[in-house]
Amino acid sequence: MSDSSAVRFADRLNNVETSAIRELFKLLGKPGIISFAGGFPDAAMFDVDGIRQASLAALEQEPGAALQYGATEGYQPLREQLAEFMGSKGAQVLPEQLLVTTGSQQALDLLGKTLISPGDKVIVEGPTFLATIQCFRLYGAQLITAPIDGHGVDVQRLEQLIVEHRPKFVYLIPTFGNPSGAMLSLERRHQVLEMAVRHDTLIVEDDPYGDLYFGEAPPPSLLALSDQVPGSRQRLVHCGSLSKVLSPGLRVGWMIAPPELLAKAVMCKQFSDAHTSTFAQATAAQYLKAGRMPGTLQRVRQVYAQRAQAMVEALRSELGEAVSFVAPQGGLFVWARLTGAGGRLADGNELARRAIEHGVAFVPGAPFFARDPDVSTFRLSFATVGEDRIREGVGRLAKALQG
Amino acid sequence: MSDSSAVRFADRLNNVETSAIRELFKLLGKPGIISFAGGFPDAAMFDVDGIRQASLAALEQEPGAALQYGATEGYQPLREQLAEFMGSKGAQVLPEQLLVTTGSQQALDLLGKTLISPGDKVIVEGPTFLATIQCFRLYGAQLITAPIDGHGVDVQRLEQLIVEHRPKFVYLIPTFGNPSGAMLSLERRHQVLEMAVRHDTLIVEDDPYGDLYFGEAPPPSLLALSDQVPGSRQRLVHCGSLSKVLSPGLRVGWMIAPPELLAKAVMCKQFSDAHTSTFAQATAAQYLKAGRMPGTLQRVRQVYAQRAQAMVEALRSELGEAVSFVAPQGGLFVWARLTGAGGRLADGNELARRAIEHGVAFVPGAPFFARDPDVSTFRLSFATVGEDRIREGVGRLAKALQG
Repeated sequence: MSDSSAVRFADRLNNVETSAIRELFKLLGKPGIISFAGGFPDAAMFDVDGIRQASLAALEQEPGAALQYGATEGYQPLREQLAEFMGSKGAQVLPEQLLVTTGSQQALDLLGKTLISPGDKVIVEGPTFLATIQCFRLYGAQLITAPIDGHGVDVQRLEQLIVEHRPKFVYLIPTFGNPSGAMLSLERRHQVLEMAVRHDTLIVEDDPYGDLYFGEAPPPSLLALSDQVPGSRQRLVHCGSLSKVLSPGLRVGWMIAPPELLAKAVMCKQFSDAHTSTFAQATAAQYLKAGRMPGTLQRVRQVYAQRAQAMVEALRSELGEAVSFVAPQGGLFVWARLTGAGGRLADGNELARRAIEHGVAFVPGAPFFARDPDVSTFRLSFATVGEDRIREGVGRLAKALQG
Repeated sequence: MSDSSAVRFADRLNNVETSAIRELFKLLGKPGIISFAGGFPDAAMFDVDGIRQASLAALEQEPGAALQYGATEGYQPLREQLAEFMGSKGAQVLPEQLLVTTGSQQALDLLGKTLISPGDKVIVEGPTFLATIQCFRLYGAQLITAPIDGHGVDVQRLEQLIVEHRPKFVYLIPTFGNPSGAMLSLERRHQVLEMAVRHDTLIVEDDPYGDLYFGEAPPPSLLALSDQVPGSRQRLVHCGSLSKVLSPGLRVGWMIAPPELLAKAVMCKQFSDAHTSTFAQATAAQYLKAGRMPGTLQRVRQVYAQRAQAMVEALRSELGEAVSFVAPQGGLFVWARLTGAGGRLADGNELARRAIEHGVAFVPGAPFFARDPDVSTFRLSFATVGEDRIREGVGRLAKALQG
């Protein structure tokens, strides 16, 4: 292209850069490496047989609909099944209140498209999901970060930031968030909803991990709790996904939003991809209808719980006081901090580089902060690695930390 | 929401409005109506058996990949099959030069996202695809229209507009375009490519209909011809789709673009929907690999050719000099003009309203013009209606025109 200026990019591309994590991922092909770097579920646990049966049923019972163009809002039988699924988790949702999206990533994109003008402020957790940061920045958002602790976002600080910045919306992953794994307490959930009403502020609840709990179920979602806080439901968006619990490859997510916002999101989706694959939607609808989801959830919860425990125990025994973390109660991640105790390394980026040399990979924490990165942090995923390999990998990590 | 200002929309939403066509489509549920209004293929011709076998093969041979997260660029076996498919149509494409998109609608969205800053100029045909107009306007494009005739875009006028406006890019549907059905002549294709080089201007070729020819194959695509015009390939984007030839429900399209642009489109897609459904991609890859596409294309070409002929003959015998049109050589549409001969109605919007009362529906032409609408035009799709019903429907149209 050197002799041509035919391709002139839009200004919005100046807001983002190719992520450091993508570069890291290129190293993961190294033979024998144990990877805690991924953010995805274990393919070995996919219910392939159930999905096969569901897709056959879709093509048998509704071939025209499963293969034809569909409504932008979503395939009606799937909207009904998803509304019922939400109901089973305590959230009363009508099918018409729910837009099917191409993975919950598209819900984020549609929120950006419908709500963010260049320069608008959005509050996110520090740390938060990397693709959220990049997605909102592409629309020109100025991101403000609210700090978290082991119980999720610091609500007092969040309220101050809302008052100070009057953001277009607040984006939270209240349950087993990526990367923090933290679980927002019930008390704080109520406070967030009350804050939404008090300051007339839109809250976005992204909830792809909430079903992946290990012991007791987490507190109800903000959406489920919104019945108890008058005026909060109309200031709340909820994003869900089948990616972490059933299959990311289907690309089936959903967004529940106030009617006016949902209508605009539908319009924007029309010009983004017309609609989500009806083939994937009809397959997902048949899967949910067949009643296989509860069994699938029970199975993946159990496996991830065992892996989480193996990782937590190995970290405690192998790294001891060199790291601090809150043991996750669900999700896919341990979020840890290098304490620097005993003069040891306290830089997650440097540890990530050394770790690759020792045959173990993970993602340093800094990129997950929209601003003011805490470079001592890092994220470990236990989801795709068996328990023995987890212990082996954490052992390698300990060696890497020793230098 | 009346007592809340929690939802404050982005400025870009002011650039578009809900289309008049959507309102029209709501009337199509009326019992007994014959609809020439759709822009979709006939579901009765979907190769359901072939798609079933392909999806079973995908889940049998590569369940992990088909259901897991995948590369944003696309599922590699599908990229290879699509590159081969393009090769069979005379365009030399490497898999790495091709990005799989969630339908070709997403290719348009990614072009908007990567290239259009608010106020940028884009040249489109007048008339052009309605969702293109809305998609680019959402990104703030100022659309300039180049007129068409029976042989596609008026290249002299196009060149003047390029010189005058220096657009970010020129968007064309050269082969059996929606809504015009026109086929750009071979001579004009060469002229467009030469113009791209002469004025260092990016050309986007959208080609969802090129395989649906009725008699002789159309001239090669701009992409295929770019080998003959040095410097043109690096100023050319080509968008393809399986929607019109195999199944829209898979939502599998693709974009071929210069490397620098493709890389930015991949980055933007990462934050739009992460990747296109791997389940749909693996199914499409297996379908193409099984070698069923040539037979499928032959079958749909034949059926659409018969329907097109039935419509053309009925229009000539029933409406005579009241309408003018060029008989389509492929695609799904007849694009016609009310001549007003004998003092008859010359307003497509009014005819559409009357037609509904007479039990036949179509889309008036005005909304397809980004500016300066020709209200005497209208679009008829013959794709989803059997030949007898086509004759019946055109008869009703004639009655509607009489008053």
